[in-house]
Amino acid sequence: MSVILDDIRAAARRIEGKAVVTPLLESPLLNQRLGCRVLVKAENLQLTGSFKFRGACNRIMQLDAAARARGVVAYSTGNHAQGVAAAARVAGIGAVIVIPTDAPAIKKENTRAWGAELAFYDREHDDRIAIAERIARERSGAALIPPFDHEQVIAGQGTIGLEIIAQAAALGAVPDAVVIPCGGGGLTAGISTAVKALSPAIEVFMAEPAAYDDTCRSLAAGERLAVDLRPGHATTFCDALTAPMPGEITFPINRRNVTAVLTLNDDTVCRGIHSAFAYFKLVLEPSGAIALAAIVANVLGRVRDIHGKTVVAVASGGNVDAAVFTEALKRGAPRT
Amino acid sequence: MSVILDDIRAAARRIEGKAVVTPLLESPLLNQRLGCRVLVKAENLQLTGSFKFRGACNRIMQLDAAARARGVVAYSTGNHAQGVAAAARVAGIGAVIVIPTDAPAIKKENTRAWGAELAFYDREHDDRIAIAERIARERSGAALIPPFDHEQVIAGQGTIGLEIIAQAAALGAVPDAVVIPCGGGGLTAGISTAVKALSPAIEVFMAEPAAYDDTCRSLAAGERLAVDLRPGHATTFCDALTAPMPGEITFPINRRNVTAVLTLNDDTVCRGIHSAFAYFKLVLEPSGAIALAAIVANVLGRVRDIHGKTVVAVASGGNVDAAVFTEALKRGAPRT
Repeated sequence: MSVILDDIRAAARRIEGKAVVTPLLESPLLNQRLGCRVLVKAENLQLTGSFKFRGACNRIMQLDAAARARGVVAYSTGNHAQGVAAAARVAGIGAVIVIPTDAPAIKKENTRAWGAELAFYDREHDDRIAIAERIARERSGAALIPPFDHEQVIAGQGTIGLEIIAQAAALGAVPDAVVIPCGGGGLTAGISTAVKALSPAIEVFMAEPAAYDDTCRSLAAGERLAVDLRPGHATTFCDALTAPMPGEITFPINRRNVTAVLTLNDDTVCRGIHSAFAYFKLVLEPSGAIALAAIVANVLGRVRDIHGKTVVAVASGGNVDAAVFTEALKRGAPRT
Repeated sequence: MSVILDDIRAAARRIEGKAVVTPLLESPLLNQRLGCRVLVKAENLQLTGSFKFRGACNRIMQLDAAARARGVVAYSTGNHAQGVAAAARVAGIGAVIVIPTDAPAIKKENTRAWGAELAFYDREHDDRIAIAERIARERSGAALIPPFDHEQVIAGQGTIGLEIIAQAAALGAVPDAVVIPCGGGGLTAGISTAVKALSPAIEVFMAEPAAYDDTCRSLAAGERLAVDLRPGHATTFCDALTAPMPGEITFPINRRNVTAVLTLNDDTVCRGIHSAFAYFKLVLEPSGAIALAAIVANVLGRVRDIHGKTVVAVASGGNVDAAVFTEALKRGAPRT
């Protein structure tokens, strides 16, 4: 079980005209300050405010008529919820989303506004997968749309990689590296498969919250390890990157494709939010800013000399409450 | 003296590959809430964070070698400053910018970072045009790049109109109306000329700060009137829309093309900033959010029934200090 370039190209044809071809943006002022060329893939401008629509849409478009009639079910911290809800609406089918009670208000409101039904769970005590599976059974076998560990979902996210290479070429650039936010690894599995197939010399880095460093430790150990989820252990405001463990399907792909995993604490992530605001005029949620943060805060620079190089940051989403954003802007401002 | 579609098409060829083709964005959730289709032309994603680069670039590219050698001079509250500085750098020539001491810090810093020399003036006591003309004379006739009242500048801004019509068509939309932020009227003169030539039934509206309602009163009177600039009279945080009077060249064009001028106070503008944040994940400065604000706060709706219609908001810029943005986000949040 894996994903190849042809799967991603087929996904691109399937979601064409439904997903937004998001821009690849550049700030000559930031380039000048950092001494390298930074390209930002602005997936916060994607339908539903994050990349998740791509994978959900690619999966749902492949359901047959009988499966569509039963609707779909998904569990999510928020962005996948909106992606599935929107993809279901585009396909004209029903969706039930299992969502944590403490998800950002904007993610819950928007999922409902996209027409999905919400089923809440408690992040500390409930098993969201079990709840989703029960709902699917109750609806005579509604299809589950997993957040990352599914080939069709991975292939959908991989369409970002096709766009990065084409858009960089239009700017006269060949990326030396791409940095990708890391939760369960689906975004990286898709993008890395696409960019490595099209541009084999490119290096792929993942950026992960220090408190959820399961992928970093798993790649080091060569096996899938989980974070310690007991209360008080793992906390981060990167609410979209809190999958506790790499996926069964995503892990071997990323093991093959990824050069290194960068871990960042929340303070450092705030620097990415501030840079996106100041240089790119983009609103990024914490999880969406972690890759840019790894570049501007020199986390990438400590493992690879990027002076004079071209580096792509995947800005994966922008669904953030105003209070969190405002606080992060303040924390992330450069010291004067 | 005027501007025609051919001038704008020539401008588009001149700035191609230098200016960003900014996206035309849409939020199905906002559409659903408002009962109309809103398309946002995201010029905050333009090089230098505002549309001003287009006009400056179109003007500078038409200077001959001798004029280029003398460099260029401009006066500006900030966005035009950055636009001219960047266009001068692209052309490889020098630029001096006459800028008010109280311009937003980010606009001053960035203008300098683009390589321009700054000359400061006091907004209340100095005559910025006289200062710019003196500097131009001292530099043996450096070309002045006016902020709005120049055919080549207007034609450059008009390229936005070409993109709007083409991008809307790609989305399967024909705009019924376009709303454009109004300072001296150069942006409207350019865009209205383009969109009316390509789509004659389209209606053009300008959005202007209530405290700087010179264009509104001028169009009503049929002659160019100025705002009262005595201290305590005209104040707004839309710092890019404080030209005291419509331009000689822009006024007759806009008189021909504009259906109505909408005036908004600062509180209402904040609603545009919040909507850009929540629905489009864009950072807009106050002046850049005024057109979207006119739509979401139903200012446009009071003069024209837009239910079921397609309306374009030109989001003209995103150069805003974090403190101003944060405060505006709070003021613009929907009452719950």
